[in-house]
Amino acid sequence: MAHFLQQLGVSLPLIQSPMAGLQDSALTIAVSDAGGLGSLPAAMLTPQALQQELDLLSQRKQPYNLNFFCHQMPTYDTEQQEVWQTVLAPYYKAYGITATNQNPAAASAPFNAEMLNLLEHYKPPFLSFHFGLPEPALCQQLKKWRTKIISTATTIAEALYLQERGVDAIIAQGLEAGGHRGHFLTDDLSVQMGTFALLPQIVKAVHCPVIAAGGISDATGVAAALSLGAAAVQVGTAYLLCPEAKTTPLHRAAIKSSAAQHTALTNLFSGRPARAIMNKLMQELGPMNAKAPPFPLARAAITPLRAAAEQTGCSDFSPMWCGQNVSGCQEISAFELTQQLCKGVKTLK
Amino acid sequence: MAHFLQQLGVSLPLIQSPMAGLQDSALTIAVSDAGGLGSLPAAMLTPQALQQELDLLSQRKQPYNLNFFCHQMPTYDTEQQEVWQTVLAPYYKAYGITATNQNPAAASAPFNAEMLNLLEHYKPPFLSFHFGLPEPALCQQLKKWRTKIISTATTIAEALYLQERGVDAIIAQGLEAGGHRGHFLTDDLSVQMGTFALLPQIVKAVHCPVIAAGGISDATGVAAALSLGAAAVQVGTAYLLCPEAKTTPLHRAAIKSSAAQHTALTNLFSGRPARAIMNKLMQELGPMNAKAPPFPLARAAITPLRAAAEQTGCSDFSPMWCGQNVSGCQEISAFELTQQLCKGVKTLK
Repeated sequence: MAHFLQQLGVSLPLIQSPMAGLQDSALTIAVSDAGGLGSLPAAMLTPQALQQELDLLSQRKQPYNLNFFCHQMPTYDTEQQEVWQTVLAPYYKAYGITATNQNPAAASAPFNAEMLNLLEHYKPPFLSFHFGLPEPALCQQLKKWRTKIISTATTIAEALYLQERGVDAIIAQGLEAGGHRGHFLTDDLSVQMGTFALLPQIVKAVHCPVIAAGGISDATGVAAALSLGAAAVQVGTAYLLCPEAKTTPLHRAAIKSSAAQHTALTNLFSGRPARAIMNKLMQELGPMNAKAPPFPLARAAITPLRAAAEQTGCSDFSPMWCGQNVSGCQEISAFELTQQLCKGVKTLK
Repeated sequence: MAHFLQQLGVSLPLIQSPMAGLQDSALTIAVSDAGGLGSLPAAMLTPQALQQELDLLSQRKQPYNLNFFCHQMPTYDTEQQEVWQTVLAPYYKAYGITATNQNPAAASAPFNAEMLNLLEHYKPPFLSFHFGLPEPALCQQLKKWRTKIISTATTIAEALYLQERGVDAIIAQGLEAGGHRGHFLTDDLSVQMGTFALLPQIVKAVHCPVIAAGGISDATGVAAALSLGAAAVQVGTAYLLCPEAKTTPLHRAAIKSSAAQHTALTNLFSGRPARAIMNKLMQELGPMNAKAPPFPLARAAITPLRAAAEQTGCSDFSPMWCGQNVSGCQEISAFELTQQLCKGVKTLK
């Protein structure tokens, strides 16, 4: 049986991690052009923006991956927002910001029928999901298009859950990974494992292809993950300094400094635990704070603070997503980086 | 330059993790006989018991490693103990136990001059330290004996600290590892990294040999760690089902069950964060509880509870140390397991 990536024309066993807020299709295209599978984070795009990106991606020969979220949307709770705004009040005051209650739900909706309809014209080759899977009816439609379905597991139980529902491949997301944790069966972070423990145990537990993510940052990391049984790797952090990434100058500076040695899982910026470089907000409120509203409802209250601070060149309130291994970050093109990452790796065709 | 293990006659790049409370020299000897470096956890032994073990180990040709702790001993605080006993009071009541204040410090002293004097007769080939390094004068004496000094780093900063103080090798302990975390420069657990991120970054940061620990459980794991730049690996959890280990029947049963899929760092059993299989005490008090006295002063209050519960076949209060990857645990001899772990690995001589 051909490799699940090779079936659709990907020649390198490497998927670029979709990084919402940090990239657009420029990165997707560069990685796909190099022979890997470029990803586009679609979860936070408006329908118009998504359509524009899909028009660009679908004009090209190379396959691409679209990423969506599958969270349960929580009820917007004004009281909860006010508690959160009270926590943030001293910072609002310092920046002269007035709290407003704006429901940001529309900008971070889980994958739904409307999105599916938008995709129908394009029938994307790969769709990857974070936080579980969409409703079975939506998955069935994707399968009719022969779209390959990928989702993230952070535990063996999640891997078995995904396999049972017929995914084409499972991303084993180790604790080293940057950005949002993909867990969906339990919120207990103590069950989350490092890649060295998670990957081989998922490989042993399932029969579908497993994609290793978390801490993989250079060619030796790619080779090590493949030797531990991964069918492919997913790499994000290493791309953050590439010119094709939309990483802000403040974020780039942090990655290049010793600050990047201290990342932590934080729920302050979105409501769900995600790995970011430690900054003032995380230090002062604690990276995990029980008063942050559930995902994605914590975000709106932070956004104006972040904007005001960044205007003064300050990253105290910025979510600087980053994995634990920055040793592979290079200021080179994503095309070149993809080829370096797969140096010595057997191509799939 | 010869490999630091081969210099003293070790032929496989594998160190068996010292596991206090779970082994004696039987495991050390079995691993050393197979060509690896067997370790003896010496930190919790009385001088008499240590001497007996050293008599056994030194009669053999094969080298061995002794492990000691280098913590700062905290002041015994009766009030702190009473707070801790109050937390435990409902459990004491259920088992009909009366709280007593016993200072357990003597049984878990950091490495000191008295221990050094005891070692002089044996001049052990390898000494590994957890929680930092002993005083420089003690290290100097060890160097005069040509004892190889190894210590544990959980961050890049700790690795640089150890290198500056002249260790012969550094153990990069990833977050996957079972038992006590070896951190000593900060108590902030958010800086702790998975092996996939920690190992290559330490390898890049230092020039001395790096030993990979955490999540390595079979031959593919050993090969992957070596390919990531490790000079050797340290493996503990995989040995816990070997007949030479003193793992209790309750602990063995937990390792063989799905319970082992959920480990967590807990300070309940000793006062320092250590990875153990989740049980009732950890669930009910939270695995990390601020009322637990500092290491090693939390232990004494748990010991009678553990003993009473284990007598009824109950592991609710037992510290079941375990790493995140149990997939390599096998009920075979430690000699055979060592050889399996190093299958395909080039021997050092």
